[in-house]
Amino acid sequence: MSAPDAVRVMEVGPRDGLQNEKTILPVADKIALVDRLSACGLPAVEVTSFVSPRWVPQLADAEQVLAGISRRPGVDYPVLVPNLVGYQRARAAGADSIAVFTAASEAFSQRNTNASIAQTLERFAPVLEQARADGVRVRGYVSTVLGCPYQGEVALDDVVQVASALHAMGCAEISLGDTIGVGTPAKARAMLRAVAGQIPMAQLAVHFHDTYGQALANVLACLEEGVRVVDAAVSGSGGCPYAKGASGNLASEDLVYLLHGLGMHTGVDLAALAATGQWLSGLLDQPNRSRTGTALARQ
Amino acid sequence: MSAPDAVRVMEVGPRDGLQNEKTILPVADKIALVDRLSACGLPAVEVTSFVSPRWVPQLADAEQVLAGISRRPGVDYPVLVPNLVGYQRARAAGADSIAVFTAASEAFSQRNTNASIAQTLERFAPVLEQARADGVRVRGYVSTVLGCPYQGEVALDDVVQVASALHAMGCAEISLGDTIGVGTPAKARAMLRAVAGQIPMAQLAVHFHDTYGQALANVLACLEEGVRVVDAAVSGSGGCPYAKGASGNLASEDLVYLLHGLGMHTGVDLAALAATGQWLSGLLDQPNRSRTGTALARQ
Repeated sequence: MSAPDAVRVMEVGPRDGLQNEKTILPVADKIALVDRLSACGLPAVEVTSFVSPRWVPQLADAEQVLAGISRRPGVDYPVLVPNLVGYQRARAAGADSIAVFTAASEAFSQRNTNASIAQTLERFAPVLEQARADGVRVRGYVSTVLGCPYQGEVALDDVVQVASALHAMGCAEISLGDTIGVGTPAKARAMLRAVAGQIPMAQLAVHFHDTYGQALANVLACLEEGVRVVDAAVSGSGGCPYAKGASGNLASEDLVYLLHGLGMHTGVDLAALAATGQWLSGLLDQPNRSRTGTALARQ
Repeated sequence: MSAPDAVRVMEVGPRDGLQNEKTILPVADKIALVDRLSACGLPAVEVTSFVSPRWVPQLADAEQVLAGISRRPGVDYPVLVPNLVGYQRARAAGADSIAVFTAASEAFSQRNTNASIAQTLERFAPVLEQARADGVRVRGYVSTVLGCPYQGEVALDDVVQVASALHAMGCAEISLGDTIGVGTPAKARAMLRAVAGQIPMAQLAVHFHDTYGQALANVLACLEEGVRVVDAAVSGSGGCPYAKGASGNLASEDLVYLLHGLGMHTGVDLAALAATGQWLSGLLDQPNRSRTGTALARQ
């Protein structure tokens, strides 16, 4: 494992997790979730989404959640925004860090956002411009980097091109997402290597879903390749809209267990994180999807 | 990934899976399970255990199960035996391949088998001698290779010593088991490397439990290290007696999905395997613990 041996865990449960759960939590629970997560020592917690409530009713209370959290110094609290209107809503609500999202698959972009990849990038141009003027950090998500539920295979070149476009527009970090969890380690490694040929590895993150149980093995391959930012969601919340009932995001607890076992520093208190995942699973009235979380809760 | 690119998947569900499930299946279902598994193209299916029914009531019907299966040419059908009496029972029932088991942790051996490691090895001496005379293949399991529920850390030297003793006694293959699933990839790799310093890699297998969600990442590290035999249980059956309600064996479906994604040959029909895991989960009246199996069933 190459130095440095510190990994930044980006906690996406409050956004990518909750937006795909059928249970809608009250505002107070969402605020408590974010505050518990930052108290665990996580360096970054994605708080919510300013995508229209018509599309994501689970996060219709974005303003209230963002206003309600207790910000810890040094913790990054990005919120997802779809366009300039969303950006302005987010800023008015106090956001100082945002994330934008597009896809490497044209078919997915069309079906998921009703826009071509090129159109989504056009939408982001004024957002990135304004963010630069405002001193707001921007993270860019590229989804379907290892496969698409509509078109199947996604060409490496398409991933590289979209990631490079986001980078050129000013995204400080690009998160490469296997949205449907179909990837395996050799493919994940090759994809990361291709993107890292164009963008410094320090600006790349990986984002795996555990639909086929491959997420942590993919993370390992990408760590070996040099990535040092990994997305995950506490208790593996999120499910998969393309395989109903299947597993969702990589569970943060399983990731942190792996990283600590590899001797890598995260700053995260695993016991506190596991307790938070167990608490969240109770609120969502579902089994804890983190295996580490489940094991620690049963000890 | 080094050549050769074929991996032998040892299916342990009918034994290591079922012996840790509270639901006891009827003989006919156990026979059907073994036959469905061999029909999936698995090269080896561990059928049952001839450990005393007082210790493993789930497998008290070992004779009937072994007599009832339809043997496919070329498939290895080992059964677990604890001592010479067990060996003779197994042979009388038609076994032509067996497995013996001990531990790398002295504390675990004492509590689990009421005997020291040295005593278990002494018990195996006449078993191995008779097996050699009978032309019976013997697999040796070493449990707790990455941690023990009683003593905690297990020294690498202890793992190497026990594995070497089994090898010297004539075991054709040594399966290195992380019984409680606490291991992570760097430790798994170091353990395998240490053992492979004494025993040819071709005679080693790895056996991971998914208690902390690390099993597949550990497999990946060990594949990179050169191992080409991996144990797994369909639908991730088995649970973990040391963390009640936690996940059990690595699911065969998730393993095969990984291997095929890495371009490695297994001979296994993944769709048929996933259907078998889904069927077994129904019989056991529990959620399918294979993520690949769950995803494939929901498509």
